[in-house]
Amino acid sequence: MLKKTKVNAAILIIGNEILSGRTQDTNTSTIALWLNSIGVKVNEVRVIPDIEQTIIDTVNSLKKINDYVFTTGGIGPTHDDITAESISKAFDLKYEIHKEAFKILESYYKPGEFNEGRQKMVWMPKDAKLILNPTSGAPGFNVENVFCLPGVPSILKSMLGGLKNEIVGGEPILSHTISLRTVESEIAKSLTDVQNKNKDIEIGSYPFFQAGKLGVSIVIRSEDKSKIDNCSEQILDFVNKKNIEVVEKN
Amino acid sequence: MLKKTKVNAAILIIGNEILSGRTQDTNTSTIALWLNSIGVKVNEVRVIPDIEQTIIDTVNSLKKINDYVFTTGGIGPTHDDITAESISKAFDLKYEIHKEAFKILESYYKPGEFNEGRQKMVWMPKDAKLILNPTSGAPGFNVENVFCLPGVPSILKSMLGGLKNEIVGGEPILSHTISLRTVESEIAKSLTDVQNKNKDIEIGSYPFFQAGKLGVSIVIRSEDKSKIDNCSEQILDFVNKKNIEVVEKN
Repeated sequence: MLKKTKVNAAILIIGNEILSGRTQDTNTSTIALWLNSIGVKVNEVRVIPDIEQTIIDTVNSLKKINDYVFTTGGIGPTHDDITAESISKAFDLKYEIHKEAFKILESYYKPGEFNEGRQKMVWMPKDAKLILNPTSGAPGFNVENVFCLPGVPSILKSMLGGLKNEIVGGEPILSHTISLRTVESEIAKSLTDVQNKNKDIEIGSYPFFQAGKLGVSIVIRSEDKSKIDNCSEQILDFVNKKNIEVVEKN
Repeated sequence: MLKKTKVNAAILIIGNEILSGRTQDTNTSTIALWLNSIGVKVNEVRVIPDIEQTIIDTVNSLKKINDYVFTTGGIGPTHDDITAESISKAFDLKYEIHKEAFKILESYYKPGEFNEGRQKMVWMPKDAKLILNPTSGAPGFNVENVFCLPGVPSILKSMLGGLKNEIVGGEPILSHTISLRTVESEIAKSLTDVQNKNKDIEIGSYPFFQAGKLGVSIVIRSEDKSKIDNCSEQILDFVNKKNIEVVEKN
């Protein structure tokens, strides 16, 4: 399989509960870490409300400018679960009972329990490809480069593994962190110099406060391990000269 | 002060560390809950990388379609902190030393400690209004309807209080939650009926798993308490008829 050098994705979080602040989104971080590990970089995340036209417009815009789009939320049995119907409209596909999904849920539930509410979860865009759900039965689905996952974090997590062969990533994005006992302003100039000498490497600087002490984590990200090593050496060089304590490297 | 009925905002999270999954964003929820309490509804959240043109384009687009825009991240002393310069360009304003901010930080730090790295934090769009920082000195800033806050959650939190008089909200958005010992599919149809009878109320349904038991939280949101009460009554009505246990109401 020929790997592209840069593969990118957008994550689209659908749900009023995130926008209201009631629920803390954790799916972004779960999906992003998993995508990094298979060589896909997240370019953008959007959180939008449960409004059909907003979902349609946002999906149509994101799917054009990203290799992959992952949506979370809105595929359950209640009235506010409108992702499947909205995606059908976005792709101009019929919204209908998915026979394979119907069979899966029919055999998942005890006789008589596959009621009207649950049957809503098998309505999908015509000919959508299923994303199997080892936790609670109801599958997600995939149309072209858009992958629709549930909002419940534990269920979403359990479904990512099954997607591995559907996503063609580039080289995995590697990351190296150097945590220092210092403050950002002490290293800002030297770090800028290192960044200027390594323009194709992503260097981030993040203050932290742990066990009553201030520190800074420098995160170096690239697909190329030798470039990370080289950059790391240059950073440790000025760190040593400045007599700054290295708390952790990983 | 005349209150508008609907006031909305967008939150723009600027930072590679959120997109990589390394850092879990919590600022969205902090800002959204605070905005709700002063009658501002969050319409949209975007997370974007530390790329100047992306920041400029996204700010310019969001500020047009929202009453307020709140950005987080990228106002520290290091090379990856490019929010202030990007906002200057978005508004076509000079990026320059802000005299008031300079004075604040000059007196905040001990003599000799206000070094080159820290001085970067007083470069802002010309004539920006400062947002004071009671935690760590360095102020955020405001240009027109765009408010730029830091990314560190504890610092951001401490700065929101000072903004209260700058933001003119509508009626506070009230929320009432009814948590039930049931599953979504059992109540989906009845809840749809209630939603159809109360089209201007936002009703959300969220499954939860707590202490080994499944449940569903129904969240009713509106600016009008009597409408919430009415809707809540209709929900409790079918809940009683179905003999479903109410775990919590608040």
